[in-house]
Amino acid sequence: MVQFLSTENPDFEAAFSALLSAKREDSPDVDAIVAGIIADVRARGDAAVIELTAKFDRLDLSPDRLAFSAAEIDAACAAVPAAEREALELAAARIRAYHERQMPADARWTDASGAELGWRWTPVEAAGLYVPGGLASYPSSVLMNAIPAAVAGVERLAICAPTPGGQVNPLVLLAARLSGVDTVYRIGGAQAVAAMAYGTETIGAVDKITGPGNAFVAAAKRRVFGKVGIDMIAGPSEILVIADRDNDPDWLAIDLLSQAEHDESAQSILITDDAEFGRAVAAAVETRLDTLERRAIAAASWRDFGAVITVRDLGEAAALSDRIAPEHLELCVADPEALSARIRHAGAIFLGAWTPEAIGDYAGGPNHVLPTARSARFSSGLSVMDFLKRTTLARMSPGALAAIGPAAETLAMSESLEAHGLSVRARLDRLNRGGA
Amino acid sequence: MVQFLSTENPDFEAAFSALLSAKREDSPDVDAIVAGIIADVRARGDAAVIELTAKFDRLDLSPDRLAFSAAEIDAACAAVPAAEREALELAAARIRAYHERQMPADARWTDASGAELGWRWTPVEAAGLYVPGGLASYPSSVLMNAIPAAVAGVERLAICAPTPGGQVNPLVLLAARLSGVDTVYRIGGAQAVAAMAYGTETIGAVDKITGPGNAFVAAAKRRVFGKVGIDMIAGPSEILVIADRDNDPDWLAIDLLSQAEHDESAQSILITDDAEFGRAVAAAVETRLDTLERRAIAAASWRDFGAVITVRDLGEAAALSDRIAPEHLELCVADPEALSARIRHAGAIFLGAWTPEAIGDYAGGPNHVLPTARSARFSSGLSVMDFLKRTTLARMSPGALAAIGPAAETLAMSESLEAHGLSVRARLDRLNRGGA
Repeated sequence: MVQFLSTENPDFEAAFSALLSAKREDSPDVDAIVAGIIADVRARGDAAVIELTAKFDRLDLSPDRLAFSAAEIDAACAAVPAAEREALELAAARIRAYHERQMPADARWTDASGAELGWRWTPVEAAGLYVPGGLASYPSSVLMNAIPAAVAGVERLAICAPTPGGQVNPLVLLAARLSGVDTVYRIGGAQAVAAMAYGTETIGAVDKITGPGNAFVAAAKRRVFGKVGIDMIAGPSEILVIADRDNDPDWLAIDLLSQAEHDESAQSILITDDAEFGRAVAAAVETRLDTLERRAIAAASWRDFGAVITVRDLGEAAALSDRIAPEHLELCVADPEALSARIRHAGAIFLGAWTPEAIGDYAGGPNHVLPTARSARFSSGLSVMDFLKRTTLARMSPGALAAIGPAAETLAMSESLEAHGLSVRARLDRLNRGGA
Repeated sequence: MVQFLSTENPDFEAAFSALLSAKREDSPDVDAIVAGIIADVRARGDAAVIELTAKFDRLDLSPDRLAFSAAEIDAACAAVPAAEREALELAAARIRAYHERQMPADARWTDASGAELGWRWTPVEAAGLYVPGGLASYPSSVLMNAIPAAVAGVERLAICAPTPGGQVNPLVLLAARLSGVDTVYRIGGAQAVAAMAYGTETIGAVDKITGPGNAFVAAAKRRVFGKVGIDMIAGPSEILVIADRDNDPDWLAIDLLSQAEHDESAQSILITDDAEFGRAVAAAVETRLDTLERRAIAAASWRDFGAVITVRDLGEAAALSDRIAPEHLELCVADPEALSARIRHAGAIFLGAWTPEAIGDYAGGPNHVLPTARSARFSSGLSVMDFLKRTTLARMSPGALAAIGPAAETLAMSESLEAHGLSVRARLDRLNRGGA
């Protein structure tokens, strides 16, 4: 039975706080194991990667078989049925079009002092994308990680995707090809992250590593952070649906389940201003659970972390939403734009009942890699910005230095950084001698 | 004696690699101590912060004295001499003007399918800025961290600045006031980071923590990352100067020393296409070192990590620069714009000999918080973006869902995520029944 809360209930604040702070995921402490794996890969390169793959993935590789060959990728792509291929192509085109609009502009200007200022953006040279194996081997994640990198202009894009027992999802290879990925390695775990961060004889080191993974992969990404850039460490998926009574309870029930089915630790919450409608949605969830393939997972998530919250009005809903800072937020209300304007913290907003969250997972265009666990308060989903970096530019004319330099010298001396001050003073002295 | 390298020397590659990989900083492993401090502050709040401040900063506080009072800040600001005040005001105005240009634009469009897509940016609600105590208590860092936050629209800005033995730098308090900081707490170390991340009875929790600090502060920031956002973990400062012979060796010598004086672990490198000019700069460094206040620090940095590299031409210089990926890069050559265009990885570029790096530390306008330790390959300096986050927006019309939905359903089913597929299917079925 899912939890029902109401802001009219005197114990609401305690119940809502408990919902917010529920520990949904127990990360096993694998840090020591991961540290050993990384050290091994750094010391022994390919040999370590091959041994660890034999051990963890029951797969015997040689250096020349670490990567899929072009012929293997060709064969896998050819094996994908037309409907799936066309769906992937449509998704890839839409994701590319959306992310192309994210490219930031360079800037350059001259200010009143005569100083030329600005910045410019450049792509990282090489990026590595981790794709989990087995059940969580999602071709859509390949598109969502690799296409922003390709749009940013990353020259070398590699994927590491473990193939336990040799099993591979052909759609993953097709998604890689559609995204412009150069090389797909059939390795996984902390050893794959270490190989991408430090390089081996066969595997080129990259500058940035993104993509989801299990506790070993997450711990490895944390460890190599600094040596390379990483994306976020994603937690279990979340959806918040804010809905008025003028909705089909079944639509919202299935939307809530679309996140609950990901993981027993996922969290699905409905906020509504109509208690009776909330009960109708909860009933529809139970009906859908009867037949859902992944009902064991979805039912556990809904029972343990789901909630139906009744509020007095949509203003209350917006305020609660900002406290949740949801990864995914559906606004199924008469005026979703107006409600959206009152929301500040959310990874992605889906406006109106004709926009199920699943559209955003695959083919809407925006990225599906989004901040979880309330981190939408301070972070954003994956974008082309994750594969770009900014260099600031400054050029002083002698006149600009004359205008700005004395302040810099004063501040340097006040911070007891004499050489900083002298580097300005030496030039100002030349100017005072008429030497520009 | 500083190290001399030449690309014409057969052992250049080995020497250059050694220079790149020199371990310049030994971070003491304080993680266990920091974990204990964070747990203590979470459990006991103000009481723990006060006890730890008495212990580490020899300062007795009470909850009502954790923050400076308005009267204390007024008095400190009034004590700042006019020259320093005016310099700070000029720097603040220039930094604000530069960062105001960084504000990214929201976007919204309707594509050919009828789908409305876009994104919008919102500021984090509260940010906390760490300012080290003692010698490294730099008012310029207050401006560089707080002004981008204020420009981004952060409503609540707090500073934690330890005051060992009660000593405070009045310029820090003036810089805080000029930057729009609401509250300055006289606490530091891991306890300050814990208090900002989790809040205490007196200190409000923030969403993002930025600013430099010692090993305890760095370890604490790593630990609270995820609960709040953090900026980078900065390493020792670096400068690379690329110069032709048509420069005053003394100018470049003092520029190299302006980073060397920061820290014995700092790194200053000159690349030139004229070996004789390189020796002249090295000689000028020695001359300047004779009289520099911080000569002990600067000489150690220059001796242990400095280098003068002779190259055949500026193309080689650009290639080596990208391998260094310097925090600060000065281009003192005839055509700095042309050389800049060949550079890809650098935190900040200073164009032409009239632009000493120190201008950028104080009053140029760009931020002085920049990526170190080769991380300019994948990351950027501090900016207003660090205090903003993006929410993606999507709105499907029934027609857009009809166009895009089948692909999403196909992909969901191929990933065995049935509820994802059903959430689209339920709506498509309504459409097929004419129910839009």
